[in-house]
Amino acid sequence: MKNDVIYRNATEEDLDQIVAMLWDDKLGRTRERYEQPLPSTYIEAFKAIEADPNNELVVASAGHKIIGVQQITFTPYITHQGSWRATIEGVRTSASHRGKGLGSGLIQYAIQRAKNRGCHLIQLTTDKQRDDALRFYERLGFKATHEGLKMKL
Amino acid sequence: MKNDVIYRNATEEDLDQIVAMLWDDKLGRTRERYEQPLPSTYIEAFKAIEADPNNELVVASAGHKIIGVQQITFTPYITHQGSWRATIEGVRTSASHRGKGLGSGLIQYAIQRAKNRGCHLIQLTTDKQRDDALRFYERLGFKATHEGLKMKL
Repeated sequence: MKNDVIYRNATEEDLDQIVAMLWDDKLGRTRERYEQPLPSTYIEAFKAIEADPNNELVVASAGHKIIGVQQITFTPYITHQGSWRATIEGVRTSASHRGKGLGSGLIQYAIQRAKNRGCHLIQLTTDKQRDDALRFYERLGFKATHEGLKMKL
Repeated sequence: MKNDVIYRNATEEDLDQIVAMLWDDKLGRTRERYEQPLPSTYIEAFKAIEADPNNELVVASAGHKIIGVQQITFTPYITHQGSWRATIEGVRTSASHRGKGLGSGLIQYAIQRAKNRGCHLIQLTTDKQRDDALRFYERLGFKATHEGLKMKL
């Protein structure tokens, strides 16, 4: 399968399949709305990401089917002698393609993009309710050195 | 003291004092370079932040003295029905002003900015080596629901 998978920036035509995939998830089902037509907030967010040179919405596609998604944000910081870092968020793979190296492929793509952009660090947070995710990221070389804190507004 | 503190976006003139404060820290001392003239990477990072409408470098100032700093990043995401979130990074207060509500003032400022920008969530990661920081953020209402993973590139 790996040879048929392409990693590329998402287009607006991919958005319906992306939202369907975000919704088809233990946590996603409680917070996403997958309806026709797609709620306009998704389209507005897509346009904001597309217009921002420091944000990339990346999909893994196999033919016309979207089977994985993630967002990469590049941020300049004063800390660490004024350096850029990459943040990965919203990594999802389609339920029918688990265990085939697709998640790993997405993260490797993000690492390569981060290197190309001159980032000194790549980071993400993962919900403590996702038991397998921590081990998955540790296998790829991430260290769980930080607590990830959130507050709803 | 509180009445004399102003929270505002940093200017390039503040940068020397900001870097001095980042360096004067248990972890910062191992990774920052506070020299005259300031390493150009700090100046380049400042200019990149200043030019980006989704990044704000915020200082707490008392007269001409910079006594606190943080960076706020606003990011549009597809997840959570296409919504914006705010990320706080690099929060530091000067050693001479600890325990006077300055850290709390910085975070309250960030929360207000996040609300003004329509963010549904505000987030940060804190190094597990910073024992007091976790309790500080929890007192302000953050929940440590996530693991914060990093990888150096």
